Amino acid sequence: MAEAIGKLVVFGVGLIGGSFALGLKAAGAVRHVVGFDRAPDAAARALELGIIDSIGADPAALAGADLVLLAVPVAQTAPILRQLLPHLEAHTIITDAGSTKTDVVAAARSVLGARSGQFVPGHPIAGREINGPEAALAGLYRGKKFVVTPQPENSADAIARVSAAWAACGALIHSLTPEDHDRVFAAVSHLPHLLAYALVDDIANKPHAALLFQYAASGFRDFTRIAGASPEMWRDISLANRSALLGELDAYMAQLHKLRAMLDGADGPAMLALFANGQQARQRWIDTIEAAEAPRPQDTAAE
Amino acid sequence: MAEAIGKLVVFGVGLIGGSFALGLKAAGAVRHVVGFDRAPDAAARALELGIIDSIGADPAALAGADLVLLAVPVAQTAPILRQLLPHLEAHTIITDAGSTKTDVVAAARSVLGARSGQFVPGHPIAGREINGPEAALAGLYRGKKFVVTPQPENSADAIARVSAAWAACGALIHSLTPEDHDRVFAAVSHLPHLLAYALVDDIANKPHAALLFQYAASGFRDFTRIAGASPEMWRDISLANRSALLGELDAYMAQLHKLRAMLDGADGPAMLALFANGQQARQRWIDTIEAAEAPRPQDTAAE
Repeated sequence: MAEAIGKLVVFGVGLIGGSFALGLKAAGAVRHVVGFDRAPDAAARALELGIIDSIGADPAALAGADLVLLAVPVAQTAPILRQLLPHLEAHTIITDAGSTKTDVVAAARSVLGARSGQFVPGHPIAGREINGPEAALAGLYRGKKFVVTPQPENSADAIARVSAAWAACGALIHSLTPEDHDRVFAAVSHLPHLLAYALVDDIANKPHAALLFQYAASGFRDFTRIAGASPEMWRDISLANRSALLGELDAYMAQLHKLRAMLDGADGPAMLALFANGQQARQRWIDTIEAAEAPRPQDTAAE
Repeated sequence: MAEAIGKLVVFGVGLIGGSFALGLKAAGAVRHVVGFDRAPDAAARALELGIIDSIGADPAALAGADLVLLAVPVAQTAPILRQLLPHLEAHTIITDAGSTKTDVVAAARSVLGARSGQFVPGHPIAGREINGPEAALAGLYRGKKFVVTPQPENSADAIARVSAAWAACGALIHSLTPEDHDRVFAAVSHLPHLLAYALVDDIANKPHAALLFQYAASGFRDFTRIAGASPEMWRDISLANRSALLGELDAYMAQLHKLRAMLDGADGPAMLALFANGQQARQRWIDTIEAAEAPRPQDTAAE
């Protein structure tokens, strides 16, 4: 195992940041965790739960830190880095857990300037439907992917230190460029969130919404589960990844126009081919990709 | 409890028809069940499993039947009714379990003519991700909705007999006109199925599909779960409910155009309002409608 982290500082001690701290502690891979949170209650609760060892009072708490994790909405990356910069020592590596990466890289470069090599961006692909310190689990990342999206100015050592920390939590380490990351997640995560929010909002605004919801069943529940996620978080992700997301949305709308023409023309064979291709592709994905991951906690249903 | 059914004939002895037979048997609400299935293996298996008491050899098996359930793809309604008509006794009531109702009513009227009052259309809102006699459960319908969609020519007695049978299986009885049924399910079930198939097909056809599927996670899995359903069944449902489904698809595409404009204009407040409205409407649905139903079997995920 890699050398243990002497001092970890976590900004945001809820589900994502708290699980990172707990995972490292369970692996014996960290000695001291300092936690910051916008919500004083959350920091106090994280301390009670043993997620963190002390609450950070001000950015001077960064002194001597080996690793800093930003587990905060991506729009807060720049303001936090601005506070940290005066206290950033040369050996300290900062990483993050944001769902978008090109905007986070731009923020880090803008704020950190010549020291942006100390910022190694990343994205753990795991979550639960609940949030806050109580939701944190030492095993949240076990068998899940962590995508590191290095910048050219990151040293191999800095990338390795961040990857080793997530690996100690049980994560499978993948690497993508920030641009590829954002294109990939626009398609398989951000677009589905938009589609689910759009469907529920559409139904809720119909005059007979109450009748419709009365008969919505388990298929509707699963399809719209991701519309249970935080609207603020998804507004920020949508704005941060606007360009890639617009591209995916346009491609999907073109697909719906095609499907509409099939339906309007009562073209059964074409619909059957489209449905079957979708069903089979999904089944191949389940059989190969999904099967390669560890069994998820029962309520893991958001990323 | 209502008087037990002396003789029940089930066409299609898989998940839906088999669970109906098992539910009635568990309630002591049926004396003898005759099963028909396109697949001889399925009929034999249903007999072995005690779902049915005998395998129907030909439509003459209808003699003395109190109730007939058609648990077959909706496009088979007319051909089966045509076979049954010469053997249909005056006291026998036929019902069905199809996911669309106006087309089934039209088929019944066309085939049964003056005797169409003996056909009481219905739709149980329950399912599992697996099919066939092995998937059948006595408790599948417990706490789930059964929607009866009576025709004007149905007698109150005929409607009551069908409703009582589903109630004996534990279902909650609801009533809609066939037209309202099809409009409601176009919105909350049929459209989401189309959207899920369309997304997976769209991703599967991209040149970098393998990369995309590599990073699809639990949110994608739940969103696309209904794209695991039978393509043939959903082609038939789409065609049978084409008009209502086109209306819902057009409304949804208009919604996506609206959302696209928000995203293109980086209109954070408008996106936040749409996402929050969707999230809150879904939460109200979960808190009220979903909470009113019995806990589902763990793998109940399709309707």
